[in-house]
Amino acid sequence: MEKTVPVLRAILSSNDRAARQVRQGLRAHGLLSINLMSSPGAGKTSFILACAAGLRPLRTGVIEGDVAGRVDADLIAAHGFPVVQINTGGSCHLEASEVGEALLELPLAELDVLWVENVGNLICPVSYDLGTDLRVVLASVPEGHDKPGKYPAIFGVCDAVVISKIDLADLLEFDRAAFVEGVRVVAPEVPIFEVSSKTGQGLSEWLDWLRTRRGAGATAPGAGE
Amino acid sequence: MEKTVPVLRAILSSNDRAARQVRQGLRAHGLLSINLMSSPGAGKTSFILACAAGLRPLRTGVIEGDVAGRVDADLIAAHGFPVVQINTGGSCHLEASEVGEALLELPLAELDVLWVENVGNLICPVSYDLGTDLRVVLASVPEGHDKPGKYPAIFGVCDAVVISKIDLADLLEFDRAAFVEGVRVVAPEVPIFEVSSKTGQGLSEWLDWLRTRRGAGATAPGAGE
Repeated sequence: MEKTVPVLRAILSSNDRAARQVRQGLRAHGLLSINLMSSPGAGKTSFILACAAGLRPLRTGVIEGDVAGRVDADLIAAHGFPVVQINTGGSCHLEASEVGEALLELPLAELDVLWVENVGNLICPVSYDLGTDLRVVLASVPEGHDKPGKYPAIFGVCDAVVISKIDLADLLEFDRAAFVEGVRVVAPEVPIFEVSSKTGQGLSEWLDWLRTRRGAGATAPGAGE
Repeated sequence: MEKTVPVLRAILSSNDRAARQVRQGLRAHGLLSINLMSSPGAGKTSFILACAAGLRPLRTGVIEGDVAGRVDADLIAAHGFPVVQINTGGSCHLEASEVGEALLELPLAELDVLWVENVGNLICPVSYDLGTDLRVVLASVPEGHDKPGKYPAIFGVCDAVVISKIDLADLLEFDRAAFVEGVRVVAPEVPIFEVSSKTGQGLSEWLDWLRTRRGAGATAPGAGE
């Protein structure tokens, strides 16, 4: 007696396939990984450094994505953290295959937390899963409170929103309520934090939340694959 | 006797064809047109409003590009300037065909200056000629002085660089020399201005230069076609 065996095959893009590989590799090492996305100049590198210091004794590694240059990677390295620079050479986002290559250069067994600092761009990185546990958007006060309404997709897909440079909120008349309202349109539940990497304001609340995400990767895209 | 007649045909992308049409249309109306590009939140709309006021009696019109929303267009309209909003619906840049459509909604015969406010993005808009006379990059002080090194292409193609929010330079320890040095690597000659749309600082120098560009469109890409 013959039986028809249904064969199901997910049609994955090449980026999604690479992201799945990255995710498996990172999970095998028990790493908490974060794809950090923002506009240019929102303070991603300063934020990563502040988090890396605050998370000790957890050990941090970084993958730096930039169109060109390596100033951020040099800064991270100067602070003693393992770092790999990816230069996209004109491309507007990181792809999972680039992250996968960068992982080969990092001492994964000696790390607990991995940051992937994306290219500064609020639009294109949304479409590329990098295989991390979390996607976090950093939105800086000087950019203004209207950014969620103008760039809704990135706020809709992320696992947390962090408002950076909060020490400038009063000076620049940043309207927190309007910002939060804009986020809530696309992300009714996403946690929103306020931090200043310069003064340390708000970092402990954010890091408390981040610590709870270790081992909680099951909510991430592609979980359980 | 037969002769071989060489047939030369420029291979233009569909965007370049649309840009050529836009350029012809704008020139026919004697407009000075500017494609204004920047990161999200660099202050493009405030800058346009400050310029529009400073350029009177020249008459200003605006095309607003955003992924979503129309807050900037509403603000421009509230100040009495003709404006058309383009929502790219997820796309990371404006294209010339979108500008061409928007032109149909503007009273071109009653305008002297047309601003096209691009989507907030330092990378993707570089590749799309919109048919304007000028391409101007607005780089805000809070983004930091390292942006030219990280996003060199946009600084390399533009006709002028304007540093915005210059009133924050001292507070945020903005390193002007490092910024200018970064620009000079890719654009040895491009004029660099410093302005504050809030205090008015530097606007008159910038507007003096801009006024000299009226009728000087022959240096723009595609000129003479």
